[in-house]
Amino acid sequence: MPIFLNSADADFDTKFAQLLTMKREDSPDVDAVVADIIADVRARGDAAVIELTSKFDRLDLTPETMAFSRKEMDDAIATVPADQRAALELAADRIRAYHDRQLPQDATWDGPHGEMLGWRWTPVEAAGLYVPGGLASYPSSVLMNAIPAQVAGVERLVICAPTPDGTTNPLVLLAARLSGVETVYRVGGAQAIAALAYGTDTIAPVDKITGPGNAFVAAAKRRVFGRVGIDMIAGPSEILVIADKNNDPDWVAVDLLSQAEHDESAQSLLITDDAAFGAAVADAVEARLQTLERRDIAGPSWRDFGAVIVVKDMEEALVLSDRIAPEHLEIACENADDLAARVRHAGAIFIGAYTPEAIGDYIGGPNHVLPTARSARFSSGLSVMDFVKRTTMARMTPDALKAIGPAAETLAKAEGLEAHGLSVRARLDRLNDV
Amino acid sequence: MPIFLNSADADFDTKFAQLLTMKREDSPDVDAVVADIIADVRARGDAAVIELTSKFDRLDLTPETMAFSRKEMDDAIATVPADQRAALELAADRIRAYHDRQLPQDATWDGPHGEMLGWRWTPVEAAGLYVPGGLASYPSSVLMNAIPAQVAGVERLVICAPTPDGTTNPLVLLAARLSGVETVYRVGGAQAIAALAYGTDTIAPVDKITGPGNAFVAAAKRRVFGRVGIDMIAGPSEILVIADKNNDPDWVAVDLLSQAEHDESAQSLLITDDAAFGAAVADAVEARLQTLERRDIAGPSWRDFGAVIVVKDMEEALVLSDRIAPEHLEIACENADDLAARVRHAGAIFIGAYTPEAIGDYIGGPNHVLPTARSARFSSGLSVMDFVKRTTMARMTPDALKAIGPAAETLAKAEGLEAHGLSVRARLDRLNDV
Repeated sequence: MPIFLNSADADFDTKFAQLLTMKREDSPDVDAVVADIIADVRARGDAAVIELTSKFDRLDLTPETMAFSRKEMDDAIATVPADQRAALELAADRIRAYHDRQLPQDATWDGPHGEMLGWRWTPVEAAGLYVPGGLASYPSSVLMNAIPAQVAGVERLVICAPTPDGTTNPLVLLAARLSGVETVYRVGGAQAIAALAYGTDTIAPVDKITGPGNAFVAAAKRRVFGRVGIDMIAGPSEILVIADKNNDPDWVAVDLLSQAEHDESAQSLLITDDAAFGAAVADAVEARLQTLERRDIAGPSWRDFGAVIVVKDMEEALVLSDRIAPEHLEIACENADDLAARVRHAGAIFIGAYTPEAIGDYIGGPNHVLPTARSARFSSGLSVMDFVKRTTMARMTPDALKAIGPAAETLAKAEGLEAHGLSVRARLDRLNDV
Repeated sequence: MPIFLNSADADFDTKFAQLLTMKREDSPDVDAVVADIIADVRARGDAAVIELTSKFDRLDLTPETMAFSRKEMDDAIATVPADQRAALELAADRIRAYHDRQLPQDATWDGPHGEMLGWRWTPVEAAGLYVPGGLASYPSSVLMNAIPAQVAGVERLVICAPTPDGTTNPLVLLAARLSGVETVYRVGGAQAIAALAYGTDTIAPVDKITGPGNAFVAAAKRRVFGRVGIDMIAGPSEILVIADKNNDPDWVAVDLLSQAEHDESAQSLLITDDAAFGAAVADAVEARLQTLERRDIAGPSWRDFGAVIVVKDMEEALVLSDRIAPEHLEIACENADDLAARVRHAGAIFIGAYTPEAIGDYIGGPNHVLPTARSARFSSGLSVMDFVKRTTMARMTPDALKAIGPAAETLAKAEGLEAHGLSVRARLDRLNDV
């Protein structure tokens, strides 16, 4: 049974707060293990990577076989069925078109004394994308990570993807090729993150690492942060659907399940202003769960963490939604556009009854790498911005230095930084002499 | 003696690589201590904060005195000399004018099937700025952290600043007031970061924490990253000056020293195409060091980590500069604008002989919180973007779902995510029935 809450109940605030802080994921403390792995890869390079891959993935590599060869990729890609290839190509095209619009603009302008001010954006030179192996090896995630990097103008894009027991996903390789990835390494876990951050003889170091991974990968990313850039540390995924009674309960049910089927720790929430509709959705979820392929994952997720929250109106729904700061937010009710425009904290919004989250996961265009676990309060989904950085620029004229230099000198003195002041004073003295 | 390198020397590549990887800072492993402090603040809230402040800052607080009162701030601010106030106000105005231009634009557009796509930017609700105490308590840093947050539209802006032995910097309080900071807490160290991230009865939790700090603060920020957003983990500061012989060696010398005086682990580098000019700058540095107030800091920094690098031409300077990815880059030579336009990795560029870095530190307009330790390869200085986040939006029409839904279904099936496919299929079946 999912949790049923009603905002009219006396204990609602307490119950809702419990829902927000519910611990959905055990975070095993793998930090010590990960520290050892990183140190080992830094010290022994390829040899450590090969040994760890043999141990964890039961795969024996050599420096020569660490990356897929051109022929291996060609052969694997040739096995992809035509409909899957076409679907992936359509997805890549739409994701690229969306992200093309994210390229930020350079700017320069003149200040009040003729000084030039501005900034310039440049791409990161090399990026490494982590692609999990096994069940969660998703070609769509390759597109979502690699295309923003490609659009940003990243010169060298590589993937690290474990292939446990040698299992390869041809669609992942096709996605890599469609999005400009140069090399795919058969290496995973903390050892992949270490190799990408510090480099080995075979794997050249990158400047930025993105992509989801298990607890070891997350801990490794946290540790190498600073040495390289990283994207967010992803937590378990969640969806919030805000829907009124003018919806098909089954549509909402499958939307909730599309989140629940990811992971037992995923969370699917419904907020509705109609208690009977809420109950109908819960029934529809149970009905779908009877036959769903991944019912052993989606069932526990829904029963342990799912919730139906009945509110008095959609204004209240909006307030609760901002407190949840959901990764995915579907809004299917009257005035959905208006509500969507007033949401303050959400990773992605899917508006109207014809926009199931799965459209955004694959093919809508927006990125599906989104802030989880309430982090939409302070962070954004992956974008072109993650693969560019800004250099600020300033060029003073003698007039500008005369006008604003003395204030800089005053502040430098106040902060006890004499040389800062002298660097301005030396120039002002010359200018005043002339 | 600083390091002298010449790109014509046989061992230059090795020596330059050593310069790049030089360890300038001991990183004491304070992680265990910090973990304990965070756990303590989470468990005991105000009581822990008060106890730790008494222990580390020799200051006895109560929940009532944890924040400066309105009157305490007024009284302290009234002691600021008029010239310092005017300088700080000019700085605030110019920083605000620069950052006003950074506000990102929302966008919506129609896709090929009438679907709406786009994104919207919203500010972080609450931000906490950390301001170090003691020697490094800089009012300019308050402006540089708080004004971007204020421009972004952050509703609640607070500062945590330790006041060891009760020592207060009135200019810091004035800077806080000029940049819209609501409350200044007399709390520092890892306990301040923990309080800002998790909240106590007195200190409400924030969504984003920025600002520099010592090893304990840095370790605490790394630990709470994910729970809240953080800015970068700052390392020791550096400057690279690229200058030809048509410069006053003394100007370049004080610019180098303005970095060196920050910290014994700061690094000041000169690249020039004229060996005699390089030697003249080194002499000028020594001359200035005789009398510089902070010579006990700037001297060791220059002698241990400073370097003069002679290159054959400015093209070579540009290549080396990108490998250094300097936090601050001054370019004072012919065609400085052209060179600046081709720099790929730098936090901030100061162009021409009349733009000493100190102008950017205080009053130019651009932010002085910049990526250190080569992280300009993948990150940017602080900006309005650090205090906003993007929500993506999509609204499908029935036509759009018919056009692109089947591809999403195909990919969902290929990824083994049945419910994802069903969420599309349920709608397509209805649309096809009509």
